[in-house]
Amino acid sequence: MLRISLIGFGGVGKAFMELLYNKEAFLRKEGLSLQINYILGSKGGIYDPKGIDHRKLFSYLKDGQYIADYPYGGSSDINFETMMRNGDIDIMVEMTPTNKETGEPGLTHIRRALKAGIHVITANKGPILLRYKELNLLAAENNVQLGIGCTTGGALPSVNGGLMDMAGAEILSIEGVLNGTTNYILKLMEEKGITYGDALKAAQAEGIAETNPSLDVDGWDTAIKMLILTNVLMNEEKTLKDVTVEGITGLTPEQVMDAKSKGIRYKLVGRTEKVEDIITISVKPELLEAAHPLYGIDGKNKAVRYTSDTLGDLTLIGGASGVVTAAASILRDLINISRGYKFSRIEI
Amino acid sequence: MLRISLIGFGGVGKAFMELLYNKEAFLRKEGLSLQINYILGSKGGIYDPKGIDHRKLFSYLKDGQYIADYPYGGSSDINFETMMRNGDIDIMVEMTPTNKETGEPGLTHIRRALKAGIHVITANKGPILLRYKELNLLAAENNVQLGIGCTTGGALPSVNGGLMDMAGAEILSIEGVLNGTTNYILKLMEEKGITYGDALKAAQAEGIAETNPSLDVDGWDTAIKMLILTNVLMNEEKTLKDVTVEGITGLTPEQVMDAKSKGIRYKLVGRTEKVEDIITISVKPELLEAAHPLYGIDGKNKAVRYTSDTLGDLTLIGGASGVVTAAASILRDLINISRGYKFSRIEI
Repeated sequence: MLRISLIGFGGVGKAFMELLYNKEAFLRKEGLSLQINYILGSKGGIYDPKGIDHRKLFSYLKDGQYIADYPYGGSSDINFETMMRNGDIDIMVEMTPTNKETGEPGLTHIRRALKAGIHVITANKGPILLRYKELNLLAAENNVQLGIGCTTGGALPSVNGGLMDMAGAEILSIEGVLNGTTNYILKLMEEKGITYGDALKAAQAEGIAETNPSLDVDGWDTAIKMLILTNVLMNEEKTLKDVTVEGITGLTPEQVMDAKSKGIRYKLVGRTEKVEDIITISVKPELLEAAHPLYGIDGKNKAVRYTSDTLGDLTLIGGASGVVTAAASILRDLINISRGYKFSRIEI
Repeated sequence: MLRISLIGFGGVGKAFMELLYNKEAFLRKEGLSLQINYILGSKGGIYDPKGIDHRKLFSYLKDGQYIADYPYGGSSDINFETMMRNGDIDIMVEMTPTNKETGEPGLTHIRRALKAGIHVITANKGPILLRYKELNLLAAENNVQLGIGCTTGGALPSVNGGLMDMAGAEILSIEGVLNGTTNYILKLMEEKGITYGDALKAAQAEGIAETNPSLDVDGWDTAIKMLILTNVLMNEEKTLKDVTVEGITGLTPEQVMDAKSKGIRYKLVGRTEKVEDIITISVKPELLEAAHPLYGIDGKNKAVRYTSDTLGDLTLIGGASGVVTAAASILRDLINISRGYKFSRIEI
């Protein structure tokens, strides 16, 4: 029996709990028996040492109630300290809102859990962006694992692809189309010949772009994902200051349509290259030819391409966005950990 | 220290030995210290319990000498039985010529090694095609691993992609462009408007198609790879009788050029689909539209695409052909095993 704690209970947390419920038979075949003992929100949580009943909880929550009021183990007094004091979980899933300047509160949660010998799987980019090397070493020293697959493209197995599919090869470059919102806006511009501003408005109306779209359209989301991939797969400690970032807001309809007429296309591309041990990381609109493996990435798909010394090139395309696929990405890390994979190792 | 035995010492075996030599520093960082204690050919082999010296051996072999005559541990009396009797290896790499009817001699080698508690990594399709389920269970029962990544596309992480990148998801379909020779011939037909026969001759002249090209052009190579992927990833026990196979030999230049004029393209596609628990497997020339993720696969690249219940779709493109990349694929399995990954598990 693996005992799980969910820190943060938004869309992905709820989807993860549902996924475990729906996949129970599938997980049993893996020899996995999982129960969620803690669900922690910002104002209290639920604790049930026998495992929180999925159906009962979801039936309670559907009328908008808060977890701390849940009659079966809910309380405003239940928090991260309760969990650490009780010491009765095996895996913590960290899903608090991300903070890219301090990493908090996720960073403290992850540090303390790893030190206590608890596996951590996180969807929280901040702590991984800021402190991957420290956290990964902490995991290795405590003989537990740190799963971060969900931080760089959700269902797209970008970290897996680099770690497991390229195991034994040295990654020489990383190329990524990792942001769904900009894919969508660029596609609208190309299809309708409209301006960036009009395409953004349309994407916002459809709920695809956020009210403040800067993180996506100015390239920062891509830059963060590229940084995580670079640091994890190329053993670097780069920060946002090391990335040249240019978004898509300056592209004109004329540029987009001119490219279209030539059968080429702008994509917001993240690019890490290692030349003579010098790493450069950039995010910018690039013109891709039709034969390029990332040319066709649009809709909700994402893609990453690695070049290597001995395993050739590898392009991974996939990663449909959404809370269910994000939850499935967390489950993927959990299963790979349960199958013995050591994400966190001490390099010699 | 992991002690390795190489069974079969053709191009891939030699490339694997060179790869371990070239990657020594890289492997040391992984905490891996590897030595090759046995190299077995069909007429004897080499045994050195202290590890066979790479430079000394390759310098000896470059004049065409045979391994059994090698003055430092070579003998015509050294064979598989010697190795089993001595019981002093941890990992066996099985690379004997494949036999798709009996699986021998690889099948016996693999069975006996697994029973003796030795990890096995194999590039040999025959035993995996015929007896994957038995061998995988045998590995699990003996608490060792069976690595088969090299059997289905060399460097293309097709097995990895399905097992690790889709962990926790149910694979609903597999689509593959897995044969380099047919990619090449179809490309020639499309580029030059020539007949299948002329394209085959050109491919043979360049050493890309074999003198007897049937395995490739009649679709059997693709069928075998699709069967292995289906059985491994969808937990089936299908055989070649369950696959509808049609090669590319019947395609006319008119068909190919007509498709080209419409912006579509023939590829030799392997396809496994599960509909209401019924599995169908086919290999045939299919017309792919430009937007299809497998449309652009040519040259030496291969690709596989999975659809799943909870992780969306995943397309993997890569897998440059060659002995070095095949050797790197074997090393990939070895490293993932050394990182603790349990390829072989007992399902409950």
